[in-house]
Amino acid sequence: MRLIVRGGTVVSASDVARAEVLVEDGLIVAVVPPDAELARAFADRADHVLEATGRYVIPGGVDVHTHMEMPFGGTCSSDTFETGTRAAVWGGTTTIVDFAIQPRGGSLHAGLEGWLAKAEGRCACDYGFHLIVSEVTDEALDEMDRLMAEGVTSFKLFMAYPGVFYSTDGEILRAMQRAAGSGALIQMHAENGIAIDQLVLQALARGERAPRFHGSTRPAILEGEATERAIELARVAGCALYIVHLSAAEALDRVAEARDRGEPVFAETCPQYLLLSEDDLARPDFEGAKFVCSPPLRAPEHQRALWRGLATGDLQVVATDHCPFCFREQKALGREDFSKIPNGLPGVEHRLDLLHQAVTEGRLGLARWVELTATAPARMFGLFPRKGTIAPGADADLVIYDPGRTRTLSAATHHMAVDYSCYEGRPVTGGAETVLLRGRVVLEGGRYVGRPGDGRFVARGPSRAVA
Amino acid sequence: MRLIVRGGTVVSASDVARAEVLVEDGLIVAVVPPDAELARAFADRADHVLEATGRYVIPGGVDVHTHMEMPFGGTCSSDTFETGTRAAVWGGTTTIVDFAIQPRGGSLHAGLEGWLAKAEGRCACDYGFHLIVSEVTDEALDEMDRLMAEGVTSFKLFMAYPGVFYSTDGEILRAMQRAAGSGALIQMHAENGIAIDQLVLQALARGERAPRFHGSTRPAILEGEATERAIELARVAGCALYIVHLSAAEALDRVAEARDRGEPVFAETCPQYLLLSEDDLARPDFEGAKFVCSPPLRAPEHQRALWRGLATGDLQVVATDHCPFCFREQKALGREDFSKIPNGLPGVEHRLDLLHQAVTEGRLGLARWVELTATAPARMFGLFPRKGTIAPGADADLVIYDPGRTRTLSAATHHMAVDYSCYEGRPVTGGAETVLLRGRVVLEGGRYVGRPGDGRFVARGPSRAVA
Amino acid sequence: MRLIVRGGTVVSASDVARAEVLVEDGLIVAVVPPDAELARAFADRADHVLEATGRYVIPGGVDVHTHMEMPFGGTCSSDTFETGTRAAVWGGTTTIVDFAIQPRGGSLHAGLEGWLAKAEGRCACDYGFHLIVSEVTDEALDEMDRLMAEGVTSFKLFMAYPGVFYSTDGEILRAMQRAAGSGALIQMHAENGIAIDQLVLQALARGERAPRFHGSTRPAILEGEATERAIELARVAGCALYIVHLSAAEALDRVAEARDRGEPVFAETCPQYLLLSEDDLARPDFEGAKFVCSPPLRAPEHQRALWRGLATGDLQVVATDHCPFCFREQKALGREDFSKIPNGLPGVEHRLDLLHQAVTEGRLGLARWVELTATAPARMFGLFPRKGTIAPGADADLVIYDPGRTRTLSAATHHMAVDYSCYEGRPVTGGAETVLLRGRVVLEGGRYVGRPGDGRFVARGPSRAVA
Amino acid sequence: MRLIVRGGTVVSASDVARAEVLVEDGLIVAVVPPDAELARAFADRADHVLEATGRYVIPGGVDVHTHMEMPFGGTCSSDTFETGTRAAVWGGTTTIVDFAIQPRGGSLHAGLEGWLAKAEGRCACDYGFHLIVSEVTDEALDEMDRLMAEGVTSFKLFMAYPGVFYSTDGEILRAMQRAAGSGALIQMHAENGIAIDQLVLQALARGERAPRFHGSTRPAILEGEATERAIELARVAGCALYIVHLSAAEALDRVAEARDRGEPVFAETCPQYLLLSEDDLARPDFEGAKFVCSPPLRAPEHQRALWRGLATGDLQVVATDHCPFCFREQKALGREDFSKIPNGLPGVEHRLDLLHQAVTEGRLGLARWVELTATAPARMFGLFPRKGTIAPGADADLVIYDPGRTRTLSAATHHMAVDYSCYEGRPVTGGAETVLLRGRVVLEGGRYVGRPGDGRFVARGPSRAVA
Repeated sequence: MRLIVRGGTVVSASDVARAEVLVEDGLIVAVVPPDAELARAFADRADHVLEATGRYVIPGGVDVHTHMEMPFGGTCSSDTFETGTRAAVWGGTTTIVDFAIQPRGGSLHAGLEGWLAKAEGRCACDYGFHLIVSEVTDEALDEMDRLMAEGVTSFKLFMAYPGVFYSTDGEILRAMQRAAGSGALIQMHAENGIAIDQLVLQALARGERAPRFHGSTRPAILEGEATERAIELARVAGCALYIVHLSAAEALDRVAEARDRGEPVFAETCPQYLLLSEDDLARPDFEGAKFVCSPPLRAPEHQRALWRGLATGDLQVVATDHCPFCFREQKALGREDFSKIPNGLPGVEHRLDLLHQAVTEGRLGLARWVELTATAPARMFGLFPRKGTIAPGADADLVIYDPGRTRTLSAATHHMAVDYSCYEGRPVTGGAETVLLRGRVVLEGGRYVGRPGDGRFVARGPSRAVA
Repeated sequence: MRLIVRGGTVVSASDVARAEVLVEDGLIVAVVPPDAELARAFADRADHVLEATGRYVIPGGVDVHTHMEMPFGGTCSSDTFETGTRAAVWGGTTTIVDFAIQPRGGSLHAGLEGWLAKAEGRCACDYGFHLIVSEVTDEALDEMDRLMAEGVTSFKLFMAYPGVFYSTDGEILRAMQRAAGSGALIQMHAENGIAIDQLVLQALARGERAPRFHGSTRPAILEGEATERAIELARVAGCALYIVHLSAAEALDRVAEARDRGEPVFAETCPQYLLLSEDDLARPDFEGAKFVCSPPLRAPEHQRALWRGLATGDLQVVATDHCPFCFREQKALGREDFSKIPNGLPGVEHRLDLLHQAVTEGRLGLARWVELTATAPARMFGLFPRKGTIAPGADADLVIYDPGRTRTLSAATHHMAVDYSCYEGRPVTGGAETVLLRGRVVLEGGRYVGRPGDGRFVARGPSRAVA
Repeated sequence: MRLIVRGGTVVSASDVARAEVLVEDGLIVAVVPPDAELARAFADRADHVLEATGRYVIPGGVDVHTHMEMPFGGTCSSDTFETGTRAAVWGGTTTIVDFAIQPRGGSLHAGLEGWLAKAEGRCACDYGFHLIVSEVTDEALDEMDRLMAEGVTSFKLFMAYPGVFYSTDGEILRAMQRAAGSGALIQMHAENGIAIDQLVLQALARGERAPRFHGSTRPAILEGEATERAIELARVAGCALYIVHLSAAEALDRVAEARDRGEPVFAETCPQYLLLSEDDLARPDFEGAKFVCSPPLRAPEHQRALWRGLATGDLQVVATDHCPFCFREQKALGREDFSKIPNGLPGVEHRLDLLHQAVTEGRLGLARWVELTATAPARMFGLFPRKGTIAPGADADLVIYDPGRTRTLSAATHHMAVDYSCYEGRPVTGGAETVLLRGRVVLEGGRYVGRPGDGRFVARGPSRAVA
Repeated sequence: MRLIVRGGTVVSASDVARAEVLVEDGLIVAVVPPDAELARAFADRADHVLEATGRYVIPGGVDVHTHMEMPFGGTCSSDTFETGTRAAVWGGTTTIVDFAIQPRGGSLHAGLEGWLAKAEGRCACDYGFHLIVSEVTDEALDEMDRLMAEGVTSFKLFMAYPGVFYSTDGEILRAMQRAAGSGALIQMHAENGIAIDQLVLQALARGERAPRFHGSTRPAILEGEATERAIELARVAGCALYIVHLSAAEALDRVAEARDRGEPVFAETCPQYLLLSEDDLARPDFEGAKFVCSPPLRAPEHQRALWRGLATGDLQVVATDHCPFCFREQKALGREDFSKIPNGLPGVEHRLDLLHQAVTEGRLGLARWVELTATAPARMFGLFPRKGTIAPGADADLVIYDPGRTRTLSAATHHMAVDYSCYEGRPVTGGAETVLLRGRVVLEGGRYVGRPGDGRFVARGPSRAVA
């Protein structure tokens, strides 16, 4: 099986150039200058020639933070692995890393097996798993070590959600010490959930029940505090730390300080924190519920801080934290009490397009766009150089991206299995036209041509960012 | 009852000048230039004339951190209110503020009454109480408000000692919110006890049982972390915060940053952190146990940071955390296990003298010495202007201090009821010669002439530092 | 000559209490509690009894930054020593420190003698001099040492005004090294005048000629830069540094950082930077010229930073930089070219009253108000404890201040010899009612009763802030 | 002309992988997995097959800071373009960017032409030029704009060396404003030369004449100060800034702060600052003169800061500042007066090898080594993607680097035209074995096989770092 993508502008994390990409048996074999003799010979014997003139050719997006069909507060996130990964492909993402959850009273492996079973045979794109450590037991710590060899090399802990996922500082320290030994990467949900729970109780007691109080009871200060605490515990343990869904300027400041000291501290943010704000959370008629996620959307000045963090490199990754709940049936659970609104937003489909707007506005370089959405997450989570790059030997996960296509985001047209869009009515420029997964065309001219099971589980190696 | 102190150099927090101090009925009525006609008339009718030529006349010391006869780990600190306050007077301290403890399952008032009963009729100097809140219940919070009117205006919480005094971040936040409403001052023992407990268990499991492991299991980073967390919780609550016994450069940095932002954050350090180090904790033959306190003694570079903190004003108070345990019987409880060594050092007697060395070395100004040991603690804890100053209307708590007296510190000669000295063999220059408590001479030429019960309970007002 | 001030609330830099002040032969002899027997005896023999019930009794204000009858750009500041010091007294200020200027080609002593001659026999309040070093020559450096013994202990250098007062970094370093040796205090006008001159030329070339371009050509960044440079040069020299008229958040940040490192760096700001902004500079019809001073008025967010600096103690002094030029004749020189507008604002009369508004609004404590306007400047410039405090032995410079008096500021009613007010129409609460200069009443019930020559030259000692 | 490098480990700035590099007509046409069919076909028709098994294949080094045959203080740096570039090739460097100097009274173009003439036909590797702006005149500013189109896109200014290269802050600001308009990159020698000159005069007056006083008169504080000043001036101008030869922790802190704010500020350091210290400068018997350069070698703790800066990315480039002067004849000019010692060290030959030691010690990742020495400097100075990378279309400047070769550095064996080595006797592991310049082998198995004139002038584009 030989394939050639020609005529396009190849964009990698480091450069932008006219080139042809030669693919054989699902792998990239070479990137060559246009009209190179080498390419002509290859093209002559190619099974497919994909024309990309006027398009970008970019590595398939890597979304390292999704929650497909995840149980939460008595319901379940509305995208299955089938619908969610299909939406990902539509948006130019060819690999996701989802979160398997250790069941209360069960093992990490039990969690992993459950999630592998859910995903098996259903996915439209490749997938890996992080593991959420719900209970830091001696057994769980031993499993962390073993899972490194099984392709699960990152483990998530929570400083929020007491009684659900919350770990104490002592438990966190123990897990971090294990990670220091094995080279695992610790992911942290950094909000002081213990203090937040008090604020929530007090708000409810005052009769504050609308969605916007979800935000006021989770102040930015308490994300900054928890971020600092996670950094300091990691310093004691000597391990690497990755802050998920960083939303607050206070938290970013702490990450930047740690990085200036030379510590292996990393952070991701999400499009919703870059583009939406507490004003959305305050929309009337319970509309704000559509924007309930944790950490909450912040005041607009935090957006400026986050964009600067992308520019300075203090934020390394943009992921989606895709965790959709339908407005009518699911978000409605919290109509009388914001604390009962399922936490999470849909987003897996629109990450590349939303950030591409910043490219068109000159706020983000083209190469940096690819780095943030594909290369850096792949390196960070041990998928590189197999994923996240257009390089010889890499999986031929390629996106032919049309920078000029225009469209309006809407629940009426998106492919995620959720009844609303956070970006309803927002015009965007640019979109994935053709998508290859390991050399196979799964999206062609904007039409989905793959099928469930195209995507395979990817065993990941240790984080490259840490080395 | 009239008395005049003449010939001396009166030192206050703001100035140093030759002057005479006129006292009547236990209060200072005036400070006048030498040989003022006013003084001559007063002297003619005075009952006593105290000669202070070549001496400093300073306000009696105010030690806002002592633990007399405090139960801890099955034993009790070795100084009673009688012996401890007598030692204080010998050292030029005329007011202490000790810590009453809310009993588990009991009320704040029960704690206060217990401590009032212990102190009543026994003290050589005046005394007040802070309250240690062991359990943050609704009742305890209500009591915090009521105690403000009863002269107890500061409340101590612990981020260390899980299972004993530890409060969760949620409980701390609630107490801080109360303090924000009432104007109370929250005192914080800032060490991450939850993480420390893990490190202690791990060290013991590795067979690390000597006193020095008390230090290695309580790293400075975890004091810095907890200090930051306390500051951020106080920011959420909108209350003032006072960090007790700050020992680590990391913690000081956090306090300095908060103060630069204009927040009402304050901190005390203690002579042991300024003068002793982890090298003492590492002394062989279990001698290190004499130096076990929490936070632990730090590496010598922290001393430099703390002295700089005194110079920049980021540290406002020097107190002793006096909490003595006899080496032979009490410290010995931890001979096989450092975690069983009672935490605490003797110190109430030597605070002024130890800091006076820095005055003789030019590291500390004379006025700043008085500010740190008397004026600032009095202001901080609502004792000012009754205590901590030589001003008209203030209590005539006065010390005639001989800056030239030399002596060697030793358990053989000190007056604290404890069988060792942390400063054994250390020569000091300067010492209290005569001490007045509300106009009564209680130490005269280095001879104690008072008796139990001279000291009275002092109802305190709200902190002046916060206003 | 005996005098007693009774019934009032005595406010010092550290406290607020009802008390009586006893004065004899121009000096304060005692401050005593109300109705003390001592006071009654004194009162019986007093020549005057001043009634201060319902009033504050405060130390006379000390304004350490004034420019009376100063030559500048071909004209001369409009207040003479006679009119300017009289206005000071009306506003509760009893001591000024003005700037004598070394003439180009002449000696520091020549400058001092010139200014002494201008002031002699004309002043309504006491006065001292700083010296502006226009040319850092070997002779000037030697004179700096000699002047220390003659009561001139502070020397001002300029990083602005090339060709007029500007000194190079090398000259500044040399003067600082001298100050390190003698204990002199270096005062710095910290703006990068070399870069500013380029911006001014460019603005004029673009036809930008209105007063507001005075601000745009002197950006805050260039004050921050120069402040940092002055701090670093002082660090190399090992001397103390005092930044005059600090106006920018950037500069304040640098001062705060240096102070956190424990360096002897100090700064003053002025009421105009706390209360006025670049919006005033942009007033139409050349009205902005009334607000032209250097550094220029800043954007409003700088005001917030400066108020916070007063709260944190990173700013220690509020002075006026009083340097009035009449709008109609003098400011008009720059009608066609902002760079020709004489730099300076009137202000000596209103410093206490303007800051008192912050007291009434709860932004500033009463004691801090006194500290900023009297005690701290007196300490900083070697006038303490003779000036700036109400203490035995101090000069009886006292102000009976009526906190309830209301009035509207206006050029029609002020006493400064200038035809406009920066605060025209602004209502203020509080005002000096009676002022004593060394025990003599010079303002009585708001009526000036002194005469030229009441004020004397004050030889200053070294800065107390540095010790 | 076809060539294939096979069997090696290709190291780029982002990755390390076994691969083959296909070269045709001086350009890289593809990088392919080992044994790819594509490569086999190419190899069959190749003119050369270079075997690299067990070797690294890296992009040729890019040294963006050299001074070949540069006049300085009456003498001239001892390496000609011929000898210096040949030494570069021996060390694996295939492109240098040297500094042409605007003659006093002359134009930038005159400078450029002079340097082009010196280099023409003599160089062993490719070369470009920065321009040192000695006099910021209107003409020079206009030339800066024109030179952008002629392949000179970076301009160096000096805050040091008054009377030689020094520019005032006003001149610097003007040049920066021009750069802001054209996209040029301003390079800054950041030391406060005006203050330093005073310190030098004072040291000489005290009889301090040995080489070590070159260091004591150029304190790190004055590099920190100048760096901050350059950053602030660039902020006013809105241009990008590149600090050359950063040596001091203070300077690095300022760069890190600016970068955290998101400003386009960049910095290079040099091997001598990472590996040597003021102890070398203090070597007896005038040996210290061998280590005289500006900024001077610093105290050892600065090394730690610089290594951390490489790790955090606050330092982006390692260049050599190669500027050799023979010890016997040239450095000897300053035997009686350190200020007459020609400033500069040899280094162009050993940059890759010296940094490779850090790779072997685990202090530096392999990819980062390539990034610092080739990719980042190429991007920073507009040579990318033609230089600094192994990518299709790039110049085939390749180094086959033997990581296991050991050798001892010595003047006896090095190839630079200078009679001493700063690293005499230092063992190093690793060395360039074979070097290709645009596809031609110029070093083969450690033997130089090129000839003068192999190297060509490279017209550079604008900095990629800035975009």
